[in-house]
Amino acid sequence: MNFKSDNEAPAHPAIMDALVRANEGYATAYSEDRFSRELDARFSEVFDTECNVLPIATGTAANSIAIAEISPPWGAVMCHELAHIHNDEGGAPEFYSAGAKLVPLAGDHGRLQAQPLATAIDAAGRHGVHNVKPCIVSITQATECGTVYRPDEIRGIAEVARERGLALHMDGARFANAVSWLDCHPAEVTWKAGVDVLSFGVTKNGAMTAEAIVVFGRPEWLAGMERRRKRGGHLLSKMRYVSAQLLTMLDDDLWLKLAADANARACQLARGIADSPNAALEWPVEANEVFMRADPERLQALKDKGFEFHIWPGHDDLARLVCSWATSEEQISQLIGALY
Amino acid sequence: MNFKSDNEAPAHPAIMDALVRANEGYATAYSEDRFSRELDARFSEVFDTECNVLPIATGTAANSIAIAEISPPWGAVMCHELAHIHNDEGGAPEFYSAGAKLVPLAGDHGRLQAQPLATAIDAAGRHGVHNVKPCIVSITQATECGTVYRPDEIRGIAEVARERGLALHMDGARFANAVSWLDCHPAEVTWKAGVDVLSFGVTKNGAMTAEAIVVFGRPEWLAGMERRRKRGGHLLSKMRYVSAQLLTMLDDDLWLKLAADANARACQLARGIADSPNAALEWPVEANEVFMRADPERLQALKDKGFEFHIWPGHDDLARLVCSWATSEEQISQLIGALY
Amino acid sequence: MNFKSDNEAPAHPAIMDALVRANEGYATAYSEDRFSRELDARFSEVFDTECNVLPIATGTAANSIAIAEISPPWGAVMCHELAHIHNDEGGAPEFYSAGAKLVPLAGDHGRLQAQPLATAIDAAGRHGVHNVKPCIVSITQATECGTVYRPDEIRGIAEVARERGLALHMDGARFANAVSWLDCHPAEVTWKAGVDVLSFGVTKNGAMTAEAIVVFGRPEWLAGMERRRKRGGHLLSKMRYVSAQLLTMLDDDLWLKLAADANARACQLARGIADSPNAALEWPVEANEVFMRADPERLQALKDKGFEFHIWPGHDDLARLVCSWATSEEQISQLIGALY
Amino acid sequence: MNFKSDNEAPAHPAIMDALVRANEGYATAYSEDRFSRELDARFSEVFDTECNVLPIATGTAANSIAIAEISPPWGAVMCHELAHIHNDEGGAPEFYSAGAKLVPLAGDHGRLQAQPLATAIDAAGRHGVHNVKPCIVSITQATECGTVYRPDEIRGIAEVARERGLALHMDGARFANAVSWLDCHPAEVTWKAGVDVLSFGVTKNGAMTAEAIVVFGRPEWLAGMERRRKRGGHLLSKMRYVSAQLLTMLDDDLWLKLAADANARACQLARGIADSPNAALEWPVEANEVFMRADPERLQALKDKGFEFHIWPGHDDLARLVCSWATSEEQISQLIGALY
Repeated sequence: MNFKSDNEAPAHPAIMDALVRANEGYATAYSEDRFSRELDARFSEVFDTECNVLPIATGTAANSIAIAEISPPWGAVMCHELAHIHNDEGGAPEFYSAGAKLVPLAGDHGRLQAQPLATAIDAAGRHGVHNVKPCIVSITQATECGTVYRPDEIRGIAEVARERGLALHMDGARFANAVSWLDCHPAEVTWKAGVDVLSFGVTKNGAMTAEAIVVFGRPEWLAGMERRRKRGGHLLSKMRYVSAQLLTMLDDDLWLKLAADANARACQLARGIADSPNAALEWPVEANEVFMRADPERLQALKDKGFEFHIWPGHDDLARLVCSWATSEEQISQLIGALY
Repeated sequence: MNFKSDNEAPAHPAIMDALVRANEGYATAYSEDRFSRELDARFSEVFDTECNVLPIATGTAANSIAIAEISPPWGAVMCHELAHIHNDEGGAPEFYSAGAKLVPLAGDHGRLQAQPLATAIDAAGRHGVHNVKPCIVSITQATECGTVYRPDEIRGIAEVARERGLALHMDGARFANAVSWLDCHPAEVTWKAGVDVLSFGVTKNGAMTAEAIVVFGRPEWLAGMERRRKRGGHLLSKMRYVSAQLLTMLDDDLWLKLAADANARACQLARGIADSPNAALEWPVEANEVFMRADPERLQALKDKGFEFHIWPGHDDLARLVCSWATSEEQISQLIGALY
Repeated sequence: MNFKSDNEAPAHPAIMDALVRANEGYATAYSEDRFSRELDARFSEVFDTECNVLPIATGTAANSIAIAEISPPWGAVMCHELAHIHNDEGGAPEFYSAGAKLVPLAGDHGRLQAQPLATAIDAAGRHGVHNVKPCIVSITQATECGTVYRPDEIRGIAEVARERGLALHMDGARFANAVSWLDCHPAEVTWKAGVDVLSFGVTKNGAMTAEAIVVFGRPEWLAGMERRRKRGGHLLSKMRYVSAQLLTMLDDDLWLKLAADANARACQLARGIADSPNAALEWPVEANEVFMRADPERLQALKDKGFEFHIWPGHDDLARLVCSWATSEEQISQLIGALY
Repeated sequence: MNFKSDNEAPAHPAIMDALVRANEGYATAYSEDRFSRELDARFSEVFDTECNVLPIATGTAANSIAIAEISPPWGAVMCHELAHIHNDEGGAPEFYSAGAKLVPLAGDHGRLQAQPLATAIDAAGRHGVHNVKPCIVSITQATECGTVYRPDEIRGIAEVARERGLALHMDGARFANAVSWLDCHPAEVTWKAGVDVLSFGVTKNGAMTAEAIVVFGRPEWLAGMERRRKRGGHLLSKMRYVSAQLLTMLDDDLWLKLAADANARACQLARGIADSPNAALEWPVEANEVFMRADPERLQALKDKGFEFHIWPGHDDLARLVCSWATSEEQISQLIGALY
């Protein structure tokens, strides 16, 4: 039973259907197809503002291309010390940006906080060309700890950034889970809160492979991003298949429904852990990831029973359990049962 | 009727079926799935030698990652002046290699020739650090002119390269078409002829989006290529879908069958053009691309009748007509008919 | 007797004196010293327009930083096929620009011509992100062939560039020799003719190691150039010594006097060659370089007599003979004598 | 009275004399001159082992070229959080290495310690391509805090590095000060302790502009370093002047004598501060830098009296006072007097 990652689950049937439909007939290559050309309008509708959208196959590429467009090679990207861009992308942001520096910051539950962020930015660039120049704040929504930024937290961070001339990037690999948990309009945690660019991910949420860079109110970034996408080898000749997945996710709020299902499973699991005498929650569960403390022997016992999950690096008593659209209530019950 | 490019055609039904099958159940992320893990063995079988395979979503990324692994930033890549890597990838090889120089060389029908290549290599690097250092010869099979290198031509080029310490890369975006036309074993035009690394493309050949870097006898290149794939954002979390396409293409030689169909249509079209008083073939037709000279007015008339194709840049009387697995004999007949 | 290169000659005594004077007392580090701060004003005076100046230790760095500031990584730099930036800088422009492409063009006597340049630019960027984007025209004054662009030639090139949105860069490693030969005001062959940025070199002209990036009317380029200079390791902590050399060269037109001397020696040599039955001039001599055709045996005989010079790569009957401020009339006479 | 930095002091007269001598006659360009060719032998003598030496104009370039040669773009460089390479080089190591990540670590008095270093290395690279790969440990000798690593501390760090496959780089901008203070043979704190490559700086120590990359027992690094130096624009055509400075510094141990003088001044100053009721030493004084705590008002009063020095970023009661070969006992006495 797989709780290792939402990216190990299959794609949702609606996605497979969409691919089959998208496969009918010819389509102009290199993102000039009818699906890709519809993206701007559909995302603008969903986000309730004019936005520009670049479909792209992976979140690492989406994050890196966004960062590289905004930051010069001598820029600094302020991010949480657990940020995926800093720890898990093999240096892709540095590669795309030709050497920008990621500055890792502490923060409870995976979240940056406005005040320490302000202090860090002010300290980072004070010696002109001798330092790197803070250019971007990047936050992850939902965070790497499975928690979620509230709209006012984002506004606070955005204000710190804007006052200092930095842009605000949001890594939204699990953006749907965050929006679903907050039960808010997606605009509330993005452009209305001061986010300039969002890596909108649906691969983890039930797509096959589909992400999008969504740019709010900065159309001047598009041309450079398109160049960077091409040079990164991410301008798929048959982009229609990526774009069709994105459109399908937006249809009837499928993206939010799948996220709600995954979140509900995580919530059910969290309750079970909280009730168990043998395990404890490490962080509040606000999306589809559950971090559970338990004796290493108990964790091993769970693995022996066929439950698959990751041990948090360097912490042999901390397990990460991820739910997806494909996780069933029955599976959660079994896992909870095994905790006793 | 679309003759613009083989990458505008739909994916073959067998590919769609494969994707649906690959979607069953969970699969380990990041190319550790059961499909991806099978690639080395299956390609080794097809090529009749031990080879290492990296699945990847685009040909631009495959070419660029291969080049970057072999060439240092101060390397030179000797290629035909019409090469896709030089003209059509927006500088992706330069990006991935951190600044290697592509050295464009002339050559009839899109093919490099051993002797002028040797002269160019010898001239390029004679002043040590003041020059760039020739490190790679890159050839395209089938070429950008729709022609095909014969095994002995490749052997001649490989010998020139090897004697001078350069590696030989083959851009095989239409490799299947070349092998099918030559009616040879794929080994004959790759490792047996001296090719070190092949960008094996099936996207143009009927896949949805699937390419592979195939490395012959140089397993030491793998680790770096994997790093570069990750940093390029090309290590798909759900790689199973790319690998499943590759495996399906290899099943029962589907890749060669689809290429044979496309080639046959191109051959039929070439005969029609040769017989027409109003058009002429620019280059021999040896794969699935046909280059036709005709009056600009006549080309426009074809377009007005609904035939879609590209005009060769800078030559308003030269049309590129591409056939795919989805092109029918009937469509070719109509196009030929319209030439009269 | 050394005719190998003007950069093998010693520095002029006035330069050594200037270094000794500059060494008195303390000076603020990192180009904030009194010498460096004077550069803008002094160059503005010499060029008769407001300009911004960055002192820098080498011409390769000056060229590369200028190019990198103007061209994005996906840019193309149109240059002569013999250009130093293309052939002799080991890929430095590609390194600094993170992968821009240098596009080599033919042209008699080392000079680009406006019309073929226009054609090449128009051809290079027509497919959007699939191509690189022409961003810079770079010309060398004096050229690699020892010839000199006339002001109207530069204006013609600048017009072609400006109409297409490209900037015009001039590699002026031997700028003084060109200005001296033309006997014109330096403004006539730079900003008044449409040059946006000049690599102003005096190292070959009698300095120890001193070049400058001179920017005309584009102060917005400064900040980025200063970042790139720092990241390239070219912001010397003790920049005063570079700047003092530059200032000394401008004092009483020393830069032009030294160039005039070197040119006069080259001119004397050219006449001797023209008069000799055993040798011939390859290109007109318009600066301090002389290209002489002679039998390889005769060239070897000269070497055996102690005359040092380079043979042009790939042409064993073509010698490059370079004069400097330190070359004497007597040395030239001996060399001419040895031709008989 | 300038205590801002040792790089604001003039060059030592012996250096100026050496430049004048080096200026006699012609010299082969691009580091092929008689001075540059002598470097390997002379440094090998001084370090009592075969070593390879690249002269270079700045410490930033020396550090960055060394790092780039050893670390791939996906490498990590473990360094102290105060390291110059991390904080003060504007991102130069990231630029030269095409995006390596500098991992800042804590450590008392500016020194890394073996055990926490081992833990950090082990944590940094455990997820293969998803992480960057620790490749280098870089330490600064003397440190940014004016302290000095003892030979056994370096050996401990080197052991940690070597066991894990990392190379050990030493930033020796003030190497002479450290060796002089330790009163040991330079071999004891370099190759004998496990250092693979040293940025040997003499610019701060009384040269005009001269540093060297010194490679111990890894001649295979040379070719790549030479390429990187060229591409960085650091292969001076007139390298003789840099090399002559280096050779002069080695003559009769001038480098150690000048450092001893600067250290003695710092020591005198440290005693004065320790004795003063109005100031305190922040860190032990083991080289030529003195860090003094005092009331901000008192620091301002010193500045008003004409003493120039830097306030430590973010700490308005912490002053950095740097002595050089040119600092006199009288100046120190005056400064101490002003503390009362």
